[in-house]
Amino acid sequence: MRESEIIELFLKHLKRHGELPLGDDAGALKIGDEWLVATNDMLVRKTDVPDIMTPEQVGFKAVTMNVSDVAAMGAEPIGFLFSLGLPEGLDEDYIEGIARGIGEALDYYKIPVLSADTNEADDLIIDGIALGKTKRLLTRSGAKPGDLVCVTGDIGRAFAGYLVWKYGLEVSESTRKALYEKFLEPIARVKEGIILSKSANSAIDISDGLSKELHLISKMSGVGIEISSGKLPIRGEVYEVAEVIGKSPVELALASGEEFELLFTVPPEKISELEVDFTVIGQVREGNGVYMGRKPLFPLGWEHFSRLD
Amino acid sequence: MRESEIIELFLKHLKRHGELPLGDDAGALKIGDEWLVATNDMLVRKTDVPDIMTPEQVGFKAVTMNVSDVAAMGAEPIGFLFSLGLPEGLDEDYIEGIARGIGEALDYYKIPVLSADTNEADDLIIDGIALGKTKRLLTRSGAKPGDLVCVTGDIGRAFAGYLVWKYGLEVSESTRKALYEKFLEPIARVKEGIILSKSANSAIDISDGLSKELHLISKMSGVGIEISSGKLPIRGEVYEVAEVIGKSPVELALASGEEFELLFTVPPEKISELEVDFTVIGQVREGNGVYMGRKPLFPLGWEHFSRLD
Repeated sequence: MRESEIIELFLKHLKRHGELPLGDDAGALKIGDEWLVATNDMLVRKTDVPDIMTPEQVGFKAVTMNVSDVAAMGAEPIGFLFSLGLPEGLDEDYIEGIARGIGEALDYYKIPVLSADTNEADDLIIDGIALGKTKRLLTRSGAKPGDLVCVTGDIGRAFAGYLVWKYGLEVSESTRKALYEKFLEPIARVKEGIILSKSANSAIDISDGLSKELHLISKMSGVGIEISSGKLPIRGEVYEVAEVIGKSPVELALASGEEFELLFTVPPEKISELEVDFTVIGQVREGNGVYMGRKPLFPLGWEHFSRLD
Repeated sequence: MRESEIIELFLKHLKRHGELPLGDDAGALKIGDEWLVATNDMLVRKTDVPDIMTPEQVGFKAVTMNVSDVAAMGAEPIGFLFSLGLPEGLDEDYIEGIARGIGEALDYYKIPVLSADTNEADDLIIDGIALGKTKRLLTRSGAKPGDLVCVTGDIGRAFAGYLVWKYGLEVSESTRKALYEKFLEPIARVKEGIILSKSANSAIDISDGLSKELHLISKMSGVGIEISSGKLPIRGEVYEVAEVIGKSPVELALASGEEFELLFTVPPEKISELEVDFTVIGQVREGNGVYMGRKPLFPLGWEHFSRLD
């Protein structure tokens, strides 16, 4: 069964939802005058962990990927929980590395661990859960015609780093370093999410690639989006990798997942009050679909680059 | 590494805790004037699922084991999240059975699903997460000398059912039914937990066996506990199995885990206001340790019965 079929099967049997329909970055419930947001994301070594990743990086990332979903809801992270599945005979140093990585991440994001559970399993599994709270919720469905479309930081390095690792591409040491930083040690945009909760109309974190996230905002908000390829914040190192593999740097950036940057839309009059490092990449229109200039932009994923040889 | 060593390793690196120290049934944080409680518990097929368990029962239990921890904190469950690890080629009917079981449990406990995640993994894994809220938190550390020690429902059937399954014991059909009901379809004491939150001083759910939970309450509250073997609520079906295997029904009941009954302590003057089905089994004293009559009661687990042959 494909993932989409499994999700459909579960939705058929799970009729009770929270105060926000399933399908956003996190679930949400009202407690008093605040929104509680909650999200979970499982990391499985076989499919999610490149062999050059240290256990510290694995532990840190298990926190980041969940905290990022909380940030995308405009919420302040308030707690983390995790369940571990550990294969028999897993090296003690490796386990301690994971513990250290989770601890470093909780220090970095300043959140407490609320609960943890360990089990024996066939492969290393870390299921992370993050909780957050906010007075005003950012969703994927709030984009309004006239909003500017913006993205934090830069995009493309996560996927470019993956390609360098996967295909052993030859790049300069400084390029490799800049790419691996984002590929192996991504950071969630927590401060930015809290600031955006005051002004933005919609937000999503980039976990499956900018083009896919643009389509989600468009579809869930019932709006059209037009972005300009020349405005995408793409660093020189991504151009370097694109050159090596003979692909377009823009395509590479659009397909790059696990960036954990925030894509958001905001009314133009509120843009000056945002004390966040971001780039305007386009605009929300009436209608539907995602366009780059006048051409439709199709959802691009890592799978579009799977045959590089 | 043993589980206790792994936990120690993690505690060394995780310095930020919630407003309640780790080690209770769930973690807790104050939001406004309410406590938010959060807990997670991973179910791994290889170690946690007997072969006679239907996928509906597996799904239901993944909810129950987490909701039970919320109930033990005196909290009302308000949301459920889960991450699935599904082995490649797992039968579609089996997956749908799990979905149905989770859905039935959420209907039964009247809680919404807030977030879900599916992944490919080597073995079937369901990591469940439950959230709850309460004005007054019940912990393992609140027992006071003079409190009465009480337990909801009856104890022993979960383990007796396990023994019947594991060793193919011959018992009557009605006995098997009564035991399997508790072994395969346990129910969390949600209504009871909410009522207890108003009067009890401490509570814990019975997941590792009554004798171990008594020791946890004693240790974490800094009190002694004296229980009376004649007062334990043990049903006839447990006596029947004890007879077949030549063991004491009291020992069997004390070692029986995954009962999901609530063990709690309450001041005697508040006992009449409890509209809950429970049995008084002993009393909290100054001092320390757990006694049955005058004899120390050692923590008993399933492992004490592992060589029945």
